[in-house]
Amino acid sequence: MHIETEATQHLQSAAKAAREASHVLARMSDGARNAALCKMASSLRAHTAAILTANNGDLAACNGTAAFRDRLALNEARIESMAKGLEDIAQLPDPLGRMLADWIRPNGLRIQRIATPIGVIGMIYESRPNVGADAAGICLKSGNAVILRGGSESVRSAAAINTALVAGLREAGLPDTCVQIAPNADRAYVAAMLAGAGLLDLIVPRGGKSLVERVQREAHVPVLAHAEGLCHTYVHASADHAMARKIVANAKMRRTGICGATETLLIDRSIAAALLPAIVADLRALGCDFRADASARDIVPELSPATEADFDTEWLDAILSVAVVDGVDAALAHIKRHGSEHTDAIVTEDPNAARRFLDGVDSAVALWNASTQFCDGGEFGFGAEIGIATGRIHARGPVGPDQLTTYRYLVIGNGQVRP
Amino acid sequence: MHIETEATQHLQSAAKAAREASHVLARMSDGARNAALCKMASSLRAHTAAILTANNGDLAACNGTAAFRDRLALNEARIESMAKGLEDIAQLPDPLGRMLADWIRPNGLRIQRIATPIGVIGMIYESRPNVGADAAGICLKSGNAVILRGGSESVRSAAAINTALVAGLREAGLPDTCVQIAPNADRAYVAAMLAGAGLLDLIVPRGGKSLVERVQREAHVPVLAHAEGLCHTYVHASADHAMARKIVANAKMRRTGICGATETLLIDRSIAAALLPAIVADLRALGCDFRADASARDIVPELSPATEADFDTEWLDAILSVAVVDGVDAALAHIKRHGSEHTDAIVTEDPNAARRFLDGVDSAVALWNASTQFCDGGEFGFGAEIGIATGRIHARGPVGPDQLTTYRYLVIGNGQVRP
Repeated sequence: MHIETEATQHLQSAAKAAREASHVLARMSDGARNAALCKMASSLRAHTAAILTANNGDLAACNGTAAFRDRLALNEARIESMAKGLEDIAQLPDPLGRMLADWIRPNGLRIQRIATPIGVIGMIYESRPNVGADAAGICLKSGNAVILRGGSESVRSAAAINTALVAGLREAGLPDTCVQIAPNADRAYVAAMLAGAGLLDLIVPRGGKSLVERVQREAHVPVLAHAEGLCHTYVHASADHAMARKIVANAKMRRTGICGATETLLIDRSIAAALLPAIVADLRALGCDFRADASARDIVPELSPATEADFDTEWLDAILSVAVVDGVDAALAHIKRHGSEHTDAIVTEDPNAARRFLDGVDSAVALWNASTQFCDGGEFGFGAEIGIATGRIHARGPVGPDQLTTYRYLVIGNGQVRP
Repeated sequence: MHIETEATQHLQSAAKAAREASHVLARMSDGARNAALCKMASSLRAHTAAILTANNGDLAACNGTAAFRDRLALNEARIESMAKGLEDIAQLPDPLGRMLADWIRPNGLRIQRIATPIGVIGMIYESRPNVGADAAGICLKSGNAVILRGGSESVRSAAAINTALVAGLREAGLPDTCVQIAPNADRAYVAAMLAGAGLLDLIVPRGGKSLVERVQREAHVPVLAHAEGLCHTYVHASADHAMARKIVANAKMRRTGICGATETLLIDRSIAAALLPAIVADLRALGCDFRADASARDIVPELSPATEADFDTEWLDAILSVAVVDGVDAALAHIKRHGSEHTDAIVTEDPNAARRFLDGVDSAVALWNASTQFCDGGEFGFGAEIGIATGRIHARGPVGPDQLTTYRYLVIGNGQVRP
């Protein structure tokens, strides 16, 4: 209870300072925000030794798996990459003040809709310490103040990175309080953030499913997140075989641990016998394992059998669930039953089938003839990414029928895979 | 506890049916949704006698004020107006499938952002029974299913209206479950809705501040709302006197009970002596009372003195708080301290002062030379309105700097007042 109170008090004072800083940021020119991003980048480079020392401390205290240690580990190249990331963000067009709409009413009133910062953002993340710097950069660029709360395993690294970022802010003449960090990695601080209605305008959780689900369940503040990315690639009867092989291999195996990785291959019955053996061979060569339904195992008998639960599993690993389906509607029905409204793709040369699929799937991102791994802010041309949201957003100001909609992205390719 | 369980069970089953209905709605053509709206309108007219009988029951059980009874009361004209409202909504352009953005990446991927329904909306409202029909119409038009929970005082009227709407849906061949109503007005149902993460995509509370604040505090579902509309009109030194008088009278007195009504007049010191007496006389003639700061009372001594708390009060009545301020920055500082980020206006002939004000005020709607009562979906040309939101929304899909912004509206007039 004492810790809870301390966390709450810290957050209240941090959020108040962040609110004031956000007002300064919102009035500041794009040039001034960009100059600060460049100072933060230089400061990260100048603090390399201190950051690496702190990171060694985190690594020494860490008893996680090799993959976990790799996510936690920093080196000079990774710090340079964080710094370069901030400079890249500085090069992006100004997100603020954009005229989103402009119209004139019959009575002569001119109405304009203008982009404006969200305000104060709380970022809750887990092991990778670079997430803090990336998030600080994106928030600053978009005129938002941010309060960072990293994981307990990276607490020393996160503090050292924050010290560097704040030194850069100060050098640029911006309030220190544009970017703040939780004083420790106590769980009480997360609880205080989730309860922080009126203090925070938005929470962005980045991490495992259990973290995100806890945040979605308990937060009294809007949450921008996805709990999981159970993404499908559907190979339609009229798919180009070579394109389908290339796309499935990339969508599953380019990186298996990201939320846009394909977890389930849906393959049309009419093409399965001809194409599935080649797809399996391609993926096997890349180290992939399979969980397949009975129809797929009739074609490639050595595949491991899938349980119903396998189709609800986000593997985030070199494992692919495989189901044979009868046409577009069956593929859509499978995705509705098992999907997470994140990212789903169809491979086909038939524009009618593509249209039916793209219209029927209600994911945040639907692709035609491209790899699901393109679901990424950088790949969309956004220049940087703080996360991927599968929530169904709404509106500000007067709300009529147009404002009672959200949006989804269609991505139309001709066989693109992500390098 | 027993009631809580019953409410939760009802909501779960209603939300499941609504989810299925929302999928049907989302795939349906605009023409089919419009035909259903027209059938619902005809059905409302055909059910006039039943609705009036139910409404008489509500009125007989009501021991509220005359104003409260007036909000609750229906008559043939009000039912016709509900029906006409649905037909008007049917005439609006299709909100779904709009291409919100469309671009091509260097690798040839074409990315399109498309408007899509939010899904299942929970509407919690108080006394005015027509709100249920309006909300059902807007939701249906935008492809959303809705679960309505009206106030206890209008429970009979709301049920009769819902019966009429559902008969119209059925006649049009749509699922009944597109529009559903809570089985009673127990508070447990509101609690079930607020806890309904995963069941509801959005809650829209329409009613008094205490209802809205409870919803904002307790909901585990995104909320579209404003807790209060503490709107300001700032009369700048370079205001046209005649325009300022006309705008202030309209902004305060056209309707005092709506959220876009001006609650506080900020008047520039350099113009106050010349203009305030005339503004006071105009408003007095309309029945308005005043709470004025010391400087205003120096000019018009018979005004009642204002306390600091008066400037934090949303009167929703024929009372105007008045403060004399020294220039645009002082006006902005007053608004930051006392405002609710809803709607604020400046009256001036000086474009630089206007720009400084419009840039500096962070309300959902900022107006120049127009009445704050224009903050309305109909007046914005949205065709209908389910509510006004002051939250700071966010994004769906990949989130980069542009997506970490919300928006605000600027409204530029030349003296328009709302009829």
